[in-house]
Amino acid sequence: MQDKFSQQINFILELDKMKNLYRQTLVLHEDRQENDAEHSFHLAIMACLLAEYANELVNILHVVKMVLIHDVVEIDAGDTYCYDTQGNLNKAEREQKAADRIFALLPEEQEQEYRNLWNEFEERKTPESRFANALDRIHPMLLNYTKGGISWKTHQIHAEQVRERNFPVVAEGSERLAELAEEIIQKATDSGMLLN
Amino acid sequence: MQDKFSQQINFILELDKMKNLYRQTLVLHEDRQENDAEHSFHLAIMACLLAEYANELVNILHVVKMVLIHDVVEIDAGDTYCYDTQGNLNKAEREQKAADRIFALLPEEQEQEYRNLWNEFEERKTPESRFANALDRIHPMLLNYTKGGISWKTHQIHAEQVRERNFPVVAEGSERLAELAEEIIQKATDSGMLLN
Repeated sequence: MQDKFSQQINFILELDKMKNLYRQTLVLHEDRQENDAEHSFHLAIMACLLAEYANELVNILHVVKMVLIHDVVEIDAGDTYCYDTQGNLNKAEREQKAADRIFALLPEEQEQEYRNLWNEFEERKTPESRFANALDRIHPMLLNYTKGGISWKTHQIHAEQVRERNFPVVAEGSERLAELAEEIIQKATDSGMLLN
Repeated sequence: MQDKFSQQINFILELDKMKNLYRQTLVLHEDRQENDAEHSFHLAIMACLLAEYANELVNILHVVKMVLIHDVVEIDAGDTYCYDTQGNLNKAEREQKAADRIFALLPEEQEQEYRNLWNEFEERKTPESRFANALDRIHPMLLNYTKGGISWKTHQIHAEQVRERNFPVVAEGSERLAELAEEIIQKATDSGMLLN
């Protein structure tokens, strides 16, 4: 079976692997890490609910599609913790290779569409991708802070690391979300969740 | 903090509870049940990828929003296994009460929008809700079958139960997905995953 419909179903089944790709962020109500499927679900609904705070007018469906597949390459390339300097050295190369294999599961037209969406997310050159990246950066901050900063404490993260890495990206996509980011960093630092 | 933005953020944090609402379906690559956040993620990307197979022309963003929140009431009402006759008796009542509380966390305009989306999903009177329901029914069938029918076997489900419950709903939303549903039921019966 390699007709178009079968290819689409196979790609959908492949995405099941996102349910056991675990991130550094913890879920709020269980003692375990969040997985990529849960993270992507959360970003998709955030895109729908918070679109009014995007700095530029965005096509919401375009943002949603982008956040739903932005982490799909981690199926092959794994999740690289954002403060892991070593792991980030060859991240781009590993992820390009993963994108080659995974998007090729789709029929040609959708392979192009979703590969382009993934590239667009990575490049941050469009209003949609800037907003999608802002959501992707604020989401773990929001969960980490609400969870009492366990993940930051475990990795001994400094406030300045979080600010440097996230603030410009969030601000590029949404000034309102950047205010929230700064509020979180301040409060997390004041309460000892982040090192000063 | 009860300004509009705070209400939206609180609702988003409330949705984290969907990550520990476990369904009867198992994920493919771990020995555990799927949760509502993962299920909703999967439906959202399926809506984007399979929209061409909807029986009627659908607004994809509308379908996506609907599937992202269709299970949100389970935060209070719990997941009722579809073949649990007893549990399904007061399901509607429990879910209405849950909807009252949960959607009221949103600012008024979005409370209306998402409450309406949830009602629309339940009523299956629009092209978008018929397609969304088709996805919601085919998804666990696809996962159960791919996983070797463990969930069906555990609950000793008969082919006719699956067909009666799902086939008409899937067919109403998508003839192509209904063909897949029938193919799955046939193969699952032939291989002993479903009782004859």
